[in-house]
Amino acid sequence: MALVEVSVIPLGTGTPSVSRYVARVVEVLKGEKDINYELTAMGTIMEGDLDRLLAMVRKMHEAAFDAGAMRAVTLVKIDDRRDKASGLSSKLESLKRQLGE
Amino acid sequence: MALVEVSVIPLGTGTPSVSRYVARVVEVLKGEKDINYELTAMGTIMEGDLDRLLAMVRKMHEAAFDAGAMRAVTLVKIDDRRDKASGLSSKLESLKRQLGE
Amino acid sequence: MALVEVSVIPLGTGTPSVSRYVARVVEVLKGEKDINYELTAMGTIMEGDLDRLLAMVRKMHEAAFDAGAMRAVTLVKIDDRRDKASGLSSKLESLKRQLGE
Amino acid sequence: MALVEVSVIPLGTGTPSVSRYVARVVEVLKGEKDINYELTAMGTIMEGDLDRLLAMVRKMHEAAFDAGAMRAVTLVKIDDRRDKASGLSSKLESLKRQLGE
Repeated sequence: MALVEVSVIPLGTGTPSVSRYVARVVEVLKGEKDINYELTAMGTIMEGDLDRLLAMVRKMHEAAFDAGAMRAVTLVKIDDRRDKASGLSSKLESLKRQLGE
Repeated sequence: MALVEVSVIPLGTGTPSVSRYVARVVEVLKGEKDINYELTAMGTIMEGDLDRLLAMVRKMHEAAFDAGAMRAVTLVKIDDRRDKASGLSSKLESLKRQLGE
Repeated sequence: MALVEVSVIPLGTGTPSVSRYVARVVEVLKGEKDINYELTAMGTIMEGDLDRLLAMVRKMHEAAFDAGAMRAVTLVKIDDRRDKASGLSSKLESLKRQLGE
Repeated sequence: MALVEVSVIPLGTGTPSVSRYVARVVEVLKGEKDINYELTAMGTIMEGDLDRLLAMVRKMHEAAFDAGAMRAVTLVKIDDRRDKASGLSSKLESLKRQLGE
């Protein structure tokens, strides 16, 4: 299981407000019941099978064009660990334990 | 006011578990009472004055070396909007409104 | 045609020198005669069909594990423009024209 | 000495062509004779003293607003190695040696 953070940035939209595009991008995840994800102020963090998540990234990227963008910059960060399971909540909990919280 | 996402990745640590280093990196923020931030599974998102936040990034990067790392890759994403205020919670709320949540 | 920048960062390698891993990652591209790419000090920039390039990213990510890493953080930046063709050299040339070089 | 890759993405520009903005961003470096840098199709890679380079990043980010943008997303990747010197060309050469080129 991997963690993937993704953010899709539409360019040339005419206004600095791009939440209309971002909403379309994130809506892609709504139909995928089995993917656990979290929205943050800077992107979407998903956990699951890496190939499945990369297929999601591809769809999310495309959604910006479906919403009318002519150009999009999509940022992806994969954190993939093979020595032990590490998910959305376990990774954060491990950090918080280290912080004594 | 800007949003800055930062993650510090220590290299050559001998073990894939790096939460000990990441804890030191995040502890830098504990002494800064006036900075609003959020920990995610993929990094730290801060809001505030851009110069102040970049000074934090510099300190957080250094903390990896203080914790014993010999090399660190630090990723920074700045989202800076000058036409209207946009913070950690307002940006996410705007997206959720678009999503009809 | 899209541009994709990718860098694969192996974690927990025991030494800050990771070029052995990065070499394995980049070697994935050697067998792909039709993909135009450029190595930089910070990653690999490829141009081509987006689905093809994302399949390359997946293979390059896997190569870090083949080389012995137990964890890898892979960073991907897609620049995809649908209003006109934009490739590795044309994008840089356009910038240099603007700079009067 | 560190390596810093930076790219500044202006949002809401009305057209997908942003090289006019990017040119202003990169021009910041022209006045800095002692900073060694390289333009790529995806950003600018600089080598030098980390504090100096981060000051450059701050100026480059600001240049997007000077050029008329109302919002900018700036991406920064720092590669900082303390066990041995690693620069723009030495890092790439090390990789090419590994590749047998």
